Order: sequence, then C-alpha cells, then structure tokens
Amino acid sequence: PDGFVALVGGGPGDPGLLTTRGRRLLAEADVVVVDRLAPHALLAELDADVEVIDVGKMPDHHPIPQHEINAILVDRARQGKIVVRLKGGDPYVFGRGGEELIACRDAGIPVEVVPGVTSAIAVAAAAGIPVTHRGVSRGFTVVTGHEDIGQVPHTGAHTLVMLMGVKRLGQTCDELIAGGHTPTTPAAIIERGCTPTQRVTVATLATLAEVATAVGAESPAITVIGDVVTLSPAWG
Amino acid sequence: PDGFVALVGGGPGDPGLLTTRGRRLLAEADVVVVDRLAPHALLAELDADVEVIDVGKMPDHHPIPQHEINAILVDRARQGKIVVRLKGGDPYVFGRGGEELIACRDAGIPVEVVPGVTSAIAVAAAAGIPVTHRGVSRGFTVVTGHEDIGQVPHTGAHTLVMLMGVKRLGQTCDELIAGGHTPTTPAAIIERGCTPTQRVTVATLATLAEVATAVGAESPAITVIGDVVTLSPAWG
Repeated sequence: PDGFVALVGGGPGDPGLLTTRGRRLLAEADVVVVDRLAPHALLAELDADVEVIDVGKMPDHHPIPQHEINAILVDRARQGKIVVRLKGGDPYVFGRGGEELIACRDAGIPVEVVPGVTSAIAVAAAAGIPVTHRGVSRGFTVVTGHEDIGQVPHTGAHTLVMLMGVKRLGQTCDELIAGGHTPTTPAAIIERGCTPTQRVTVATLATLAEVATAVGAESPAITVIGDVVTLSPAWG
Repeated sequence: PDGFVALVGGGPGDPGLLTTRGRRLLAEADVVVVDRLAPHALLAELDADVEVIDVGKMPDHHPIPQHEINAILVDRARQGKIVVRLKGGDPYVFGRGGEELIACRDAGIPVEVVPGVTSAIAVAAAAGIPVTHRGVSRGFTVVTGHEDIGQVPHTGAHTLVMLMGVKRLGQTCDELIAGGHTPTTPAAIIERGCTPTQRVTVATLATLAEVATAVGAESPAITVIGDVVTLSPAWG
C-alpha cells in the first residue's frame, strides 16, 4: 500500500485561507487528523467514508498526547491510506509539525509538509495591525513561552506577538516593562481572531492586563505589543 | 462603478501555496499588479483581456516607486475594476501592504487584505528547518534591517530569520557574535527558496559568510540562525 502523510497548515480558521495544495490533499484524504484550531468548516465537505479523528487540544489540557497522534499518523499510513494532518496556522509555528515529520520518517512513511498562513500574523492583520510597516516597525518576534520575554527587542519599533494564555498577561507585561519596554507602548489583545466573533481590545503595555480583565478576555487570544497597534482601526 | 482592491499574499512562489481566497480573487480580477517574488506561474492562467502590470522590484533597484504603485491601484479601482495586488509572501510581512491599504482607504476605495503564507517561514520549512521545535526553539524573530541585529535574542534556542542581501552577511554575523550569539550556533543560507533551483548551504554563525562567499551565494536568499538548523537534512 502506498500510504503517506501530509502535514497541512490550515491557516487561522477561515476556510478561504487554506492553500490550494492543502485543499487538494484534503479532497484526496482517506483520513483527516484535525486540531482544535484548524478550519473545521472544511470537514463538512468531506465524503462520509473519510475517517475524521479530532485530536483537538483544549487550553491547559491535552486529550491526546503527541506520541499517540504520531502513532495514529503512522498506523493509518501503513494501512495504505492518504492521511492529512490538518493543523491550525502553520505546521512549523508552534504546531509540533517537526515532531510529526520525524515520527513519520523514522517509521519509513513518506511525508509532505504544506506550509500554512501563520495565525499569529493573520490574526494581527485581521485586527488591522500589520506586523511590519515602513517607518513604524522593521521586524517582529513571535513567542509562546515566558522564558523568552526577558530577551526580546524592547522597543515599540519591533513588533512582539505573544501566543499564550491571558492568565499570566499581567506578569508578562510587567516583565516587558522591567526589560526596557516603554509602559506607554501600544498593545492589543485579539480574542477568537479571524472568526465572526473576533474581539480586539487595545490599551498600553502598562494597562493591557487590567483592561483585558475588565472586558473578560479569554483564550484563544494573541497579544500584540508595538507601535504598529496604532494602525488598527480599533486604536481610534 | 464598484471597483475595489484586494491586497493578496501570494506566498513563497509555489502556485499551490496561494490561498483559495486569493485564487478566487485572481480568477475575478480585471487588473493584476504583480511583484517580482509573487507566484508568476499563476499569471499564465489569466484571461487575455486581464491587464497585468509588473511592478517587480529588482534587488537594490526600485523600477516603480511605491507612491506610483498606490496611484495605479487607486486609478484602476476608480475605473470600476477589480484590482488584485499580488504580492510575494504575506502583505504585512515586509510587503508594504499597510501603505497600500492606507492609500486606498484615503482615496475612498474598498480594500480587502488576504493574508498569505509568509516566505520567511515557508522557505525555512522547504529547507527542512522548523522555525519552532519542541525542546529546540520556543520562538522566532524575523528582521529585514541591520538596525535590529543588536537587540534580537542572542541564543540558539530562539530562531532568527534574516531577509536581507548577502553582501553584508559577514558584518551581520559579526554583530550577532558581538551581541552574545555563540559563534558555533548553526546557520543556513537558503537561495531561491521554494523554487526548483533552491540551494541550502549550512555552516556556523562564525563561518557562514565565508562559506556563502565560497559557494557564490546570491539574492534572493534568507538566512536562518539557530539550533533548529540542525534539523535540516542539509545539516547531515
């Protein structure tokens, strides 16, 4: 059997932001292994005999461990099936695509990686925030963990995108200010980005955590820090 | 006339990496204004009566200034035409999409931004380098200018992607080492990424410029610095 695995970046959630290569693979799939933040609307188009396995990870809770996901991919491909691993965003941006690639390769399974639209960048865009903009920002940093906060560029002229829970937002902002970020640096938190219920809340680095709490901000959300936030219509 | 402008991220060059939304807009376009690094293969599919305007920028040479590109977009939309601005990568990642958006808005032209697959991330992926990888890298920084080199995270556990000419590569690497980067940090330069003639050259931060010169590396190229480079098959 000629089974194989395609690790497909599904983009930020809008079905129209899947790549045409990803869409074609999805149309050919025998098995689709899907994440919580992948574009679920596309699953409705699949034929009834396509096996859909939802390994969606809830915040702070991993229903299916990564090694079991890897095992599912390898198992189905060994049965000669075309397996599409449909992920949110890009497989290589906090998507653990590298681990799945290695698991397939180690098992001798052919594997293709299809890049996707990075959620961090697309969600900022959907809020009217360009991560780079001439005369405002020349570069950007994306982090998911608190470990890196101390060493990111501490200037509003470099955009910082953070993909982490809103619970520790206050501590994170404090650490950025302690590191050298100006307290008045524009900041935004974008909940449910690229979905019909997207909400954008803007503040400054010093006030963001308080404002986010006041409006009841919750995950999934991304936080953008930098002068580019002023380009958003939400900035007013 | 109900003209409008769509700023479409064309992805890294492979036609299959355009989004389905981008592809649909392209099929509806009356006018396509295209960059040098956009997926030119897709232009062959356009009807003969579609106006194609190539505003491709050569390295170190801007044939059509940005304000003239803006004026073309506004002018054609005012004629009631559907104008697709087809860009390489993502409109908001060094794509000057924000400037074009503002120009259209100021002129009262409806404008849509369609995110694309970011070239910086997809080119690294095409070289087998995930910009993040569990246990190796928790975040990444993308810069285009030399101004930011001094303040990027100086650790191999944070991936650095640089989109700039190869001429100043030696100076850039020296500055990174002076900033605190370990000279033995793995490094790669990827020329013509995501194209059939892609070439990946690996070295260390200390030796990259010398090795790049030895193989005759030239633009367009991206440079990746960080421990994730060891995950590439090119690392050996």
